[in-house]
Amino acid sequence: MSVDVEAFLSDWQELSRFGAVEGTDGVDRQAATAADAEQRRWFADLLQRHGFAVVRDEIGNQFGLLELVPGAPYVLTGSHLDSQPTAGRFDGAYGVLASAHACIRAAEELRRAPEHARRNLAIVNWFNEEGSRFKPSMMGSGVFTGKLPIEAALETTDTAGITVRGALDAIGERGDALTAPIGSYLEIHVQQGRSMEEDGLKIGLVHATWGAHKYEFRVRGAQAHSGSTLMEDRRDALLAASRLVVAARELVDEFEPGILHTAVGELHVYPNSPVVVASEARLLMDLRSPDADVLEAASARLREVIERTERSDRVEIEVIAEHAWGQNPYAEDGVAFAAEVAAALGLPHGRVMTIAGHDSTNMKDDVPTIMLFVPSVAGISHSVEEFTSDEDLIDGLRVMTALVGRMARGEFA
Amino acid sequence: MSVDVEAFLSDWQELSRFGAVEGTDGVDRQAATAADAEQRRWFADLLQRHGFAVVRDEIGNQFGLLELVPGAPYVLTGSHLDSQPTAGRFDGAYGVLASAHACIRAAEELRRAPEHARRNLAIVNWFNEEGSRFKPSMMGSGVFTGKLPIEAALETTDTAGITVRGALDAIGERGDALTAPIGSYLEIHVQQGRSMEEDGLKIGLVHATWGAHKYEFRVRGAQAHSGSTLMEDRRDALLAASRLVVAARELVDEFEPGILHTAVGELHVYPNSPVVVASEARLLMDLRSPDADVLEAASARLREVIERTERSDRVEIEVIAEHAWGQNPYAEDGVAFAAEVAAALGLPHGRVMTIAGHDSTNMKDDVPTIMLFVPSVAGISHSVEEFTSDEDLIDGLRVMTALVGRMARGEFA
Repeated sequence: MSVDVEAFLSDWQELSRFGAVEGTDGVDRQAATAADAEQRRWFADLLQRHGFAVVRDEIGNQFGLLELVPGAPYVLTGSHLDSQPTAGRFDGAYGVLASAHACIRAAEELRRAPEHARRNLAIVNWFNEEGSRFKPSMMGSGVFTGKLPIEAALETTDTAGITVRGALDAIGERGDALTAPIGSYLEIHVQQGRSMEEDGLKIGLVHATWGAHKYEFRVRGAQAHSGSTLMEDRRDALLAASRLVVAARELVDEFEPGILHTAVGELHVYPNSPVVVASEARLLMDLRSPDADVLEAASARLREVIERTERSDRVEIEVIAEHAWGQNPYAEDGVAFAAEVAAALGLPHGRVMTIAGHDSTNMKDDVPTIMLFVPSVAGISHSVEEFTSDEDLIDGLRVMTALVGRMARGEFA
Repeated sequence: MSVDVEAFLSDWQELSRFGAVEGTDGVDRQAATAADAEQRRWFADLLQRHGFAVVRDEIGNQFGLLELVPGAPYVLTGSHLDSQPTAGRFDGAYGVLASAHACIRAAEELRRAPEHARRNLAIVNWFNEEGSRFKPSMMGSGVFTGKLPIEAALETTDTAGITVRGALDAIGERGDALTAPIGSYLEIHVQQGRSMEEDGLKIGLVHATWGAHKYEFRVRGAQAHSGSTLMEDRRDALLAASRLVVAARELVDEFEPGILHTAVGELHVYPNSPVVVASEARLLMDLRSPDADVLEAASARLREVIERTERSDRVEIEVIAEHAWGQNPYAEDGVAFAAEVAAALGLPHGRVMTIAGHDSTNMKDDVPTIMLFVPSVAGISHSVEEFTSDEDLIDGLRVMTALVGRMARGEFA
């Protein structure tokens, strides 16, 4: 099946304007903000113009549904339109738009030859994949797959105290649980790494996610005058939190290069006032590795640092949340099927792992799932500098279109 | 002159209720907040009931004026009622109330024997000494002494974007420049250290402030995906900022014990989102020492750490503001005069230095100034745990009352 390059790129340009960050090519459209509401309306209109029925489920996942074979399972494909603050325009959004165009094309084909249709078609824009405004990330697919209770998700608040329920209702994007039966899931995303670019791959066949151990720490010290208090009397929560941030980075050097990624992206300090020693700090730390032994060893070393810091700084460090998973494979038949499609199109392809989480990580536990990557220039991600060339976007769209077409004919799951 | 212990303690109890932090003995009454407005109204009423005229100047300093000798200079005495977030009820507020009661008592005496009066009496509640809501600290006395331009101060915003001008107007506390001539200044404060308690002193005669070097740093890195970005590609502003926080603490151990105090109390991170490497961090760091050579050596070591961190973390670290001063003496004749008064009252007294800044640090450059301390239990400050016993408060009030009485008779400046 051919793809309509011009239509895709024109829609891509329009989509990239929602929440555009002035003076950059990036966007800022966190979940259920005004910019997210605008792009959702635009996206609903696009789907409806092509004959898809648009519905939202109870957590604000936005679906475009096209029934070709009454009662048959749906091929679901999509990603997320929400972004991190001041982020790239490709992350998530490319996958949603490529999915829509693939389904639109497949629908045209099958309307012409309805006898080939074995599955129905559905596109999804998952709610709050990023988790920047509301935690946790992958909220929409988490609720959809039953991994996250709907009530807990709806009661989650942002830093201004607004609940997910309130934010979704404010933009009219909360509906009822989806009843359409989902038979398989397909997602495409920018790589957010630079190995495909370096290896000359155009299509990445995701065969596994890295393992991860995510911690939320609370450090408790005591407020004090940051000038006059004797150093030995202080119980400085910010100092102890900073030691953890540095320790996370230093952990990396204790292992084989590239086998461990660590980061603290978020840190909150109380009272965060000049001339006051902080009494509390909260931080989110991620350890990621493809190797379970490395993760375990890194976590053990981290516990040593925590104990040492509690003693040296006279603070208490508490794990208030943690979440760990091992290396997590995608089903090999999906990888093989996608490889066959990429090969048929003559596109350089190969197996890659994903370090970042994706909604497909939730979906693959429920239904046969395929996850694809296109290259990211220099691997830049969660940044307004994120970039993938039009050519690479179109190559991804070609594979998606072929895959959706064949899946709708019942060739995979 | 005797003091009215019962009246003072009753007023002290009332004053301590404004902005009270539930479940603690502390208060939260940052500059020009609702709690600050309430205590200002209460304080104005107290002064007016005792015959003082209440005025505010252009930066919201609140004055109670009593003219006893037309045209004569005023003895000005006071401190500040504003607090840090979740702070102690003594810091500043004790000095304001002790000043008021000392002046009320002196006024009673001099109304009975007006032939002894040589000076007029004024009490001040300086605006925004703490600098927690609006920077810098000591804003009211800074503007009053011409060290801080009034327009710059009024345009300063809090984190919600509210200006000092707007905040003062909202509570009706902005007036016109004071015209009353100020001849001398007197302030009493809790020590915020524990040396007086350990040395058995009831009255501290402040003879100098420690030197300080205060920095505001901006660290610039680049946003990136905190999972998938290769460690060597990251430019993590939070990591670099954390290294500075830790370095500030480690500096202390390079010098003689007790000679250097360092702290970072405030740190802001952008975008401060899970799964995003921070592109920017801003932090306030203070180095304090009584020894100028120590401050200079510590600053030099800090510059080395900054350069090393810029290289190791591929970030830029910029000093966006800095402010330094050496050990700064109070006039010895004021110290001697206060010592004589404390001795006459039979109170154990001695010379102490202040590590924290006070409004008297601004005033002493303009007029003869005396600064006194009463003990702080365990030196706890900027904390709801801050405590000074009623007995110590009253001893301070006795000295203040005697000093104001003698100063009004022209015995000092």
